[in-house]
Amino acid sequence: MSIRIGILGYGNLGRGVECAVKQNSDMELAAVFTRRDPVQIKIRSAETPVYSIREITEHQNEIDVLIICGGSATDLPEQTPEYVNYFNVIDSFDTHAKIPEHFANVDKAAKQAGKIGIISVGWDPGMFSLNRVYAGAVLPEGASYTFWGKGVSQGHSDAIRRIAGVADARQYTIPVPAALEAVRNGENPQLTTRQKHTRDCYVVAQEGADLPRIEQEIKEMPNYFADYDTTVHFISQEELDKEHSGIPHGGFVIRSGNTGWDGEHQHVIEYSLKLDSNPEFTASVLAAYARAAYRMQKEGMSGCKTVLDVAPAYLCRQSGEELRRELL
Amino acid sequence: MSIRIGILGYGNLGRGVECAVKQNSDMELAAVFTRRDPVQIKIRSAETPVYSIREITEHQNEIDVLIICGGSATDLPEQTPEYVNYFNVIDSFDTHAKIPEHFANVDKAAKQAGKIGIISVGWDPGMFSLNRVYAGAVLPEGASYTFWGKGVSQGHSDAIRRIAGVADARQYTIPVPAALEAVRNGENPQLTTRQKHTRDCYVVAQEGADLPRIEQEIKEMPNYFADYDTTVHFISQEELDKEHSGIPHGGFVIRSGNTGWDGEHQHVIEYSLKLDSNPEFTASVLAAYARAAYRMQKEGMSGCKTVLDVAPAYLCRQSGEELRRELL
Repeated sequence: MSIRIGILGYGNLGRGVECAVKQNSDMELAAVFTRRDPVQIKIRSAETPVYSIREITEHQNEIDVLIICGGSATDLPEQTPEYVNYFNVIDSFDTHAKIPEHFANVDKAAKQAGKIGIISVGWDPGMFSLNRVYAGAVLPEGASYTFWGKGVSQGHSDAIRRIAGVADARQYTIPVPAALEAVRNGENPQLTTRQKHTRDCYVVAQEGADLPRIEQEIKEMPNYFADYDTTVHFISQEELDKEHSGIPHGGFVIRSGNTGWDGEHQHVIEYSLKLDSNPEFTASVLAAYARAAYRMQKEGMSGCKTVLDVAPAYLCRQSGEELRRELL
Repeated sequence: MSIRIGILGYGNLGRGVECAVKQNSDMELAAVFTRRDPVQIKIRSAETPVYSIREITEHQNEIDVLIICGGSATDLPEQTPEYVNYFNVIDSFDTHAKIPEHFANVDKAAKQAGKIGIISVGWDPGMFSLNRVYAGAVLPEGASYTFWGKGVSQGHSDAIRRIAGVADARQYTIPVPAALEAVRNGENPQLTTRQKHTRDCYVVAQEGADLPRIEQEIKEMPNYFADYDTTVHFISQEELDKEHSGIPHGGFVIRSGNTGWDGEHQHVIEYSLKLDSNPEFTASVLAAYARAAYRMQKEGMSGCKTVLDVAPAYLCRQSGEELRRELL
């Protein structure tokens, strides 16, 4: 029997989950739920119904795992603790500072309901977290580094778009090659924000806009750009659409550490991702953890989990025997 | 209270575990067991007793986890199923083809004894297995590649040493750069054994030995060298001792895969290790999994496990709360 997946929220991430479910032969897309008028939503899975979020609880028995594809700012803090009362749920909550609070809220509801809620699933938090934890456990004496990019930061692109005179914008976060190299060489450098990443901005200005003023506003924007070496390129809307319409991303988690009686041997562990589509890759991770949630709840577990609490075998279609024979 | 670690077998790996225990503040080395005369064994941990393997079961109550540091050919198939009757155990069994049989033997004994036995821990099998499994779960449509090196292969070095006229030898396994590059670029190449790795041999010949015959015997040795492009360098014992006395290793696990409704987006996941000391790094992984075995058994679990069955949080000194706050 297939694992029946529900999607809540049909944006970039929800569409990515739809694609991911199609790739996993042990899953089927049972329903899509939306805050919009369901009649207006055209999805790609011809046989899957689209329902209003208002009637989601009526479909409790048709869904094994609900993948919640909302935003971390306002959607997930409300939706995940609420819907784990009815479903096993997965979310991609990525506001690092608020994870403890979100975890506590989801855990309480999930335990009462006997459901599993896996939060903060994706690549960071997610696959990158796994690699920080494994590498730190294996090399307790060492230093870990996370670099992001080259990739599009939606938050930074949005911040540029809010500047007066800007019609459209796309921002790339790029690791500084010399910093990456020093870390890879095990030099354990102390790196400032500016030394780790640069920011590259492609901006479409409105006609007659004051370009130097826009460039200055970008470069001086606190938190977003002021601490970075930022480059601003003014281009046409046509060029932006043609050259910068993708949503690539990626990055690196590197730990270097020492072993030996006196720390005489050095080791470098590196994990990297190069992603054509940030939302589709995130969605693929969500789908794998949906499988885990389904199985863990079947085994009688409940409560809030993160990727750190899930044994890898739960993520795989294959049985333990097959995994040991083929992949161990 | 510390986790009391026992080491069985004080060779390169056992000495590495001794160093690893020193780096983990929640562990202490309770005892070393040896098949040799314990009086002859000088260990670096001044306060730790060395006992004969014959009296190991008398020390059952002094050890929380026994790390078995024997060889996969003959030691571990006997020792791990035997000693899991008395201890939680960890081993680094790496004969891939015999893992299912070894798992079954350890599982049966461990379940009867109410102990945990984690087998095949290290980096391959071990950290590389984890990465094959995570990447395969996240990108179900794709191809995975494992490359080893640059590093010293003990088995291949030993095979050269068995040739008549060879005094000493060291063999390096090296990934072919062009193959690595093609895989990283997502080209999903079909690679023969010869296209993936080359073998580099440093050989000390006995005086008067027939060098061309030795070189030919190496290059034509079935399984070990015949399927590879092999280079043989004859050097002096002094040079071997000076330049090739380390035991470095490492390698790469790379998966490229596609997502999207029609597989239109490509992703590359890469994990790599660059290790100064193969046995010390392996030992560090064993120590982290010893912590997991200790905790899992405390929670009432028993039986044989592999790295695929262990949730990452069990490996870490930190609590779940600390991990979520600091590393997720």
